[in-house]
Amino acid sequence: MDKYEEKTISGTTIYEGKIITVRIEDVELPDGNHAKRELVKHPGAVAILAITSEGKLVLVEQYRKAIERSLIEIPAGKMEPGEAPEVTAVRELEEETGFGAKKFTYIQSFATSPGFANEVIHLYLAQGLYKIDNPAAGDEDEFIELIEATIEEAEELVATGKIFDAKTAFAVLYAKDLLNS
Amino acid sequence: MDKYEEKTISGTTIYEGKIITVRIEDVELPDGNHAKRELVKHPGAVAILAITSEGKLVLVEQYRKAIERSLIEIPAGKMEPGEAPEVTAVRELEEETGFGAKKFTYIQSFATSPGFANEVIHLYLAQGLYKIDNPAAGDEDEFIELIEATIEEAEELVATGKIFDAKTAFAVLYAKDLLNS
Repeated sequence: MDKYEEKTISGTTIYEGKIITVRIEDVELPDGNHAKRELVKHPGAVAILAITSEGKLVLVEQYRKAIERSLIEIPAGKMEPGEAPEVTAVRELEEETGFGAKKFTYIQSFATSPGFANEVIHLYLAQGLYKIDNPAAGDEDEFIELIEATIEEAEELVATGKIFDAKTAFAVLYAKDLLNS
Repeated sequence: MDKYEEKTISGTTIYEGKIITVRIEDVELPDGNHAKRELVKHPGAVAILAITSEGKLVLVEQYRKAIERSLIEIPAGKMEPGEAPEVTAVRELEEETGFGAKKFTYIQSFATSPGFANEVIHLYLAQGLYKIDNPAAGDEDEFIELIEATIEEAEELVATGKIFDAKTAFAVLYAKDLLNS
């Protein structure tokens, strides 16, 4: 049993959408008391730290309705049902950037908002990049602009808040360590 | 106007809970087409990278119902309505760890899941730690265990997946850079 496990006593599904499912669960705490947990279920996602042969990071800018602003992020996307994360990595890199990569290396996975959501992002390193002639198109409701940035430029984008999401902030620090070692 | 802005045409609030609010919005895309966005509203949170005089990171282990396992994380907590993030930082550090700090320094803020949620985490560095005699208690439904780890031990916790959340993975890399510079 996991430490301090909270056992589900009952639950209700509030909403089942295209991307998220929202559930309210009544749980039993380690001391026997009960509490209510508000939970968002998400299929999980993959993000790709793609580095060109010139040592530049491949980034994408897109509007994020949830926070009502555009963000510059590393390429990322949701896993399709039954899709292995390494397959998502190849697909999303092509769809969002038009790049293929000779080498994908798994870096690590992390939960983005474990306080209320089960979203896990699997982070891959993509190297040996090449332009795909006729890349597959992404989702028709996604408008994405491609950006290439040196580590110094990426750090400046973090400092000025244009890079503002946790996975990309992590990836920039990781890339800095990688390229300096 | 923000690049590729998506204008809200209509929206419905599906759920208003204690922590999250769930909304579905119909938006107009840059090409004039419409799309549906599933959005989770969250009050925002503060996380604290607290480093002891011996250079150890102060971590907390707790069960996270959303992902059905216990995680080791840096101390963090939601902002109360109207609460400034630096006040949340002081409060959460005391409630979750019993530590006070002589110096809090703002590091940066980031969105945790901009694809569907507006949660923003404000990250602070806490130094000059001291034990508070009778620390304020945290939420009664939180069961938390205090852990102190060297950078090497924290990196091992990341490698073995006991540290598994994005904010803590970022904080460990940040602390490593800070202590090695």
